[in-house]
Amino acid sequence: MSSIFTRIIRGEIPCFKVAENDSCFAFLDVRPLAKGHVLVVPKKEVDYIFDLETQDYNELMHFASRIALAIKKEVPCIKVGMAVIGLEVPHAHVHLVPLNQISDLNFSNERVKISDDEMAATAKAIANHL
Amino acid sequence: MSSIFTRIIRGEIPCFKVAENDSCFAFLDVRPLAKGHVLVVPKKEVDYIFDLETQDYNELMHFASRIALAIKKEVPCIKVGMAVIGLEVPHAHVHLVPLNQISDLNFSNERVKISDDEMAATAKAIANHL
Repeated sequence: MSSIFTRIIRGEIPCFKVAENDSCFAFLDVRPLAKGHVLVVPKKEVDYIFDLETQDYNELMHFASRIALAIKKEVPCIKVGMAVIGLEVPHAHVHLVPLNQISDLNFSNERVKISDDEMAATAKAIANHL
Repeated sequence: MSSIFTRIIRGEIPCFKVAENDSCFAFLDVRPLAKGHVLVVPKKEVDYIFDLETQDYNELMHFASRIALAIKKEVPCIKVGMAVIGLEVPHAHVHLVPLNQISDLNFSNERVKISDDEMAATAKAIANHL
């Protein structure tokens, strides 16, 4: 059984895609902590991020940094924060979250409600900054 | 005025050092979310992690991954999580935190009390896994 992220990457499950390259895929988190909350995942289905091959890990983190810069250009925030937890979906993923205060990166926070239209527009706007 | 992390790197402020290389430095967070909570910082004093030069950023993230693997060998946990917030000390830093549940990465959690002797032993033990 493929992970939900692999199924998203394959297009079997819809997503608000931001960008992809040969090894990575970025899309909006559907349960966002903030507008512009993006997940960046390796296309290889590896559970624990630190188990990725060095090249795959480096490419993932570099890709994430490019996405983070694009988010910052689109979404008003002090900084874009990064988090890797990995205790829910067994497919490594990097959260990129616009932050205005430390508690904005608390995953027990209530998620923000964003319409599908605004999600689509946000994904496209972030992509346009790449 | 140098950042507190630059002063730690220079040895002007004591720390429980885990490891360093030419461009990065790792030491125990003195206000740990869990035993084995490590901060990894670039030696260059840059505030926002995504403003680092590509090579410096890549080296930092690669160094962090090596430290994370060493933490996991020493500290019982499901995974080592990673977080970058950057709203307190204006010197980029990566938190590496042993996790057993998602809420373990919540920075509003009460910090754990660990004696200096145990901090020193933990830093040394993690270093021995590198």
